[in-house]
Amino acid sequence: MAQKYTTREEDYSKWYNELVYRADLAEHSDVRGCMVIKPYGYAIWEMMKDILDKKFKETGHSNAYFPLFIPKSYLSKEASHVDGFAKECAVVTHYRLKNAEDGSGVIVDPTAKLEEELIVRPTSETIIWNSYKNWIQSYRDLPILINQWANVVRWEMRTRLFLRTTEFLWQEGHTAHATKQEAIDETIQMLEVYADFAENYMAMPVIKGVKTESERFAGADDTYCIEAMMQDGKALQAGTSHFLGQNFAKAFEVKYADKEGKLEFVWATSWGVSTRLMGALIMTHSDDEGLVLPPALAPIQVVAVPIHRTEEELAMIDEKFQELGKKLKALGISFKYDNDDNRRPGWKFAEYEAKGVPIRLAMGPRDLENGKVEVARRDNKTKEVVDFDGIDGFIENLLAEIQTNLLQRAKDYRAANIQTVDSYEEFKSKIDGGGFFYAHWDGTNETEAKIKEETQATIRCIAIDQSEEAGVCMVTGKPSSKRVIFAKAY
Amino acid sequence: MAQKYTTREEDYSKWYNELVYRADLAEHSDVRGCMVIKPYGYAIWEMMKDILDKKFKETGHSNAYFPLFIPKSYLSKEASHVDGFAKECAVVTHYRLKNAEDGSGVIVDPTAKLEEELIVRPTSETIIWNSYKNWIQSYRDLPILINQWANVVRWEMRTRLFLRTTEFLWQEGHTAHATKQEAIDETIQMLEVYADFAENYMAMPVIKGVKTESERFAGADDTYCIEAMMQDGKALQAGTSHFLGQNFAKAFEVKYADKEGKLEFVWATSWGVSTRLMGALIMTHSDDEGLVLPPALAPIQVVAVPIHRTEEELAMIDEKFQELGKKLKALGISFKYDNDDNRRPGWKFAEYEAKGVPIRLAMGPRDLENGKVEVARRDNKTKEVVDFDGIDGFIENLLAEIQTNLLQRAKDYRAANIQTVDSYEEFKSKIDGGGFFYAHWDGTNETEAKIKEETQATIRCIAIDQSEEAGVCMVTGKPSSKRVIFAKAY
Repeated sequence: MAQKYTTREEDYSKWYNELVYRADLAEHSDVRGCMVIKPYGYAIWEMMKDILDKKFKETGHSNAYFPLFIPKSYLSKEASHVDGFAKECAVVTHYRLKNAEDGSGVIVDPTAKLEEELIVRPTSETIIWNSYKNWIQSYRDLPILINQWANVVRWEMRTRLFLRTTEFLWQEGHTAHATKQEAIDETIQMLEVYADFAENYMAMPVIKGVKTESERFAGADDTYCIEAMMQDGKALQAGTSHFLGQNFAKAFEVKYADKEGKLEFVWATSWGVSTRLMGALIMTHSDDEGLVLPPALAPIQVVAVPIHRTEEELAMIDEKFQELGKKLKALGISFKYDNDDNRRPGWKFAEYEAKGVPIRLAMGPRDLENGKVEVARRDNKTKEVVDFDGIDGFIENLLAEIQTNLLQRAKDYRAANIQTVDSYEEFKSKIDGGGFFYAHWDGTNETEAKIKEETQATIRCIAIDQSEEAGVCMVTGKPSSKRVIFAKAY
Repeated sequence: MAQKYTTREEDYSKWYNELVYRADLAEHSDVRGCMVIKPYGYAIWEMMKDILDKKFKETGHSNAYFPLFIPKSYLSKEASHVDGFAKECAVVTHYRLKNAEDGSGVIVDPTAKLEEELIVRPTSETIIWNSYKNWIQSYRDLPILINQWANVVRWEMRTRLFLRTTEFLWQEGHTAHATKQEAIDETIQMLEVYADFAENYMAMPVIKGVKTESERFAGADDTYCIEAMMQDGKALQAGTSHFLGQNFAKAFEVKYADKEGKLEFVWATSWGVSTRLMGALIMTHSDDEGLVLPPALAPIQVVAVPIHRTEEELAMIDEKFQELGKKLKALGISFKYDNDDNRRPGWKFAEYEAKGVPIRLAMGPRDLENGKVEVARRDNKTKEVVDFDGIDGFIENLLAEIQTNLLQRAKDYRAANIQTVDSYEEFKSKIDGGGFFYAHWDGTNETEAKIKEETQATIRCIAIDQSEEAGVCMVTGKPSSKRVIFAKAY
């Protein structure tokens, strides 16, 4: 290869950025902090979207669409929400341009100033609850189970492709319920949907937990999350599900009449995942040669490359692979046969390796003669020559095996990088090495803030399945009943 | 029914607005000109999206995503484009809010002013060609065949649900080609895709044509369109496909090296349909009782309602319909069984009628006894009692028949409302009655403008299949070689 790429070892962050370009997933646009998601990257996002959308519908949700713009005053209606979201956002102040009188181009027309500024949605709780107010009168109108696929904008100062961009794509579920328990059940249900998607499609193990007060969504009573470990030992919050209590119902005065006709405030949840999942997917599996994709999220699961000298050889290999293509299609396996004569096999091998195609097949004249095909796995980079006869079944099994292997590998990596610590000295000496640290904490914001300031580590969550264990806070020595998970995070 | 709804006869425009609310498709939001697309309306849009997306992919296109924001200066790069789009648009001037010092709420932070204002995309040619510039070096990089599903904003002064809203959802295809002919072929191919979708899924006949110069997209060399006739005789432009020539390539300096290494400007197309199609769908088929949906775009194709007095009867009817539900699912037919005990059958009948469900089944004790079921068609409001045995096959055929009938009915309506006129006097006396008028025109902007000013009618298009016919312009008497289509339009 002409170009030398940065390895994970050399510079993890640089490796990541180069990989996003090399695999043709996305690029920076000329608009500050906004990215262009390129066709190959978008194809992966589309697969994520389709799978999640199906799961949302299976759990009773419908899609809808609410306005991009939020009147400025709406943000102020929920007190903690405004503090969390009204700061860094795109503000629309005018609705017209005009030609400059000096002919220098177009300028903002000062006479077309909005009476009230509009905010490009950073999240849609306020605009949606302003609608729900009119939709909900009685218990018969509940629950409302709606999801929206949309773009949102948060004016981030430091951005990174997929991980943190000014504009990003996401889904946001917004539900309304008659009872507290029902809303909590919904919150947990959607957390489970996310965890299932992460593990069984992304092959990314996650820890399900609840955030501490200081890390909660602005306006939530409780924020649940799934936390994944990246290959540099850092944590990445991959999805959140919020129990919003009655906060938005109170802010927008949304009440329902129960069966006895008594008026009650409605209970709410919201939950979302975003194009950030693309970053998580990349950083969980990829290696120094490029992207590694789990078969369940690979736009191309199998690629085949002919290795020939003569046109006659090519014709025979074409026939074999075209026949295989039909068989794989019938099995629901996506297959690309690349017999483009403008590129050499070596170039193609590197290209599909960079793009993370799970299985690569190659066939040369000798394979053809012997009824064989070379099968290369992207995940562990092993190759073997197998019988072409029955190769479709072989591939089907191998894809399943790769999917399993990637999850197991990520689980093993995580297991090797989780530590239990009891002293703050030990914690401080180890935290820069990366990984998750299970430690006791006294439950106060002050201690949490002190640890963050001194180590840059945050409490990622209190794991749902964490068992009770009497101990003392590693910093203050105050009593603690459970360990929490500390890590540096994206 | 308690509420009296406006009929088409009484007030077509009011009928339309009421219907959108009554069928629970969409509603006005509190944000000026922006709508909320409700779950039932969004489900129809999702079906449209899925079908179109499949067609785009079958014709070789991939999806991608480009930024929501366009730097103001980009709009000025293509001279006619800026005149067409830089006028009424949402302008982002600031990126931060802060708490007002007097505690009155949040205000725009004057120190967070953008150096260059950002425009919320009204269409994406400029931002996309600014990217293509970096993607295209040689003929090997062509063609680029990309589509984007996105929201766009045009600050419309007068808005109507689905037909004209400040924010709307759409798809925009943007392709780049090495030759003029290839770009023209692409333009026509996508026009055909739209026409096929309109006729075979929306059951809406359309005329394929090319716009006159004055009705062209800002920046196009030619704009092709599909024009449909609504039930009030007005025309609705349902989709456009633009041959952009080399205009954007020149504006953004996008050249490619051909096989001989010679640098040439790239040829372009763009094409789009939007949530406006929802308005077209509604106004093509619906009646005074509510929405009428073609089966190919009905989220619920068949609804079944039990009519019972006792719990025992209900249990028996439940069993019958649940069994039918399985059979219909196997046939790919969407079915809803509504045995909700809180609503009476009459209420349900009116509800599903308003929502345009193509087939309604009802079963009472006598039907149960006789092995019968009542089948009501939404399109022509006929009812018949048929054998329950074999009802699944009966329904499958009936859905196909309804789809065909709706298209035929719309074709008949259109045929009855197309006229050929040769004198301007006759044209003026008839134009207020609605319909399409085939007339000769001298090909000048002046005459076109005069007719528009005097009658509010515009040239909808010059139909592609319009045969040559020597004649004279109905206004000026100058020679004309082809009739063009005049109508009042949405």
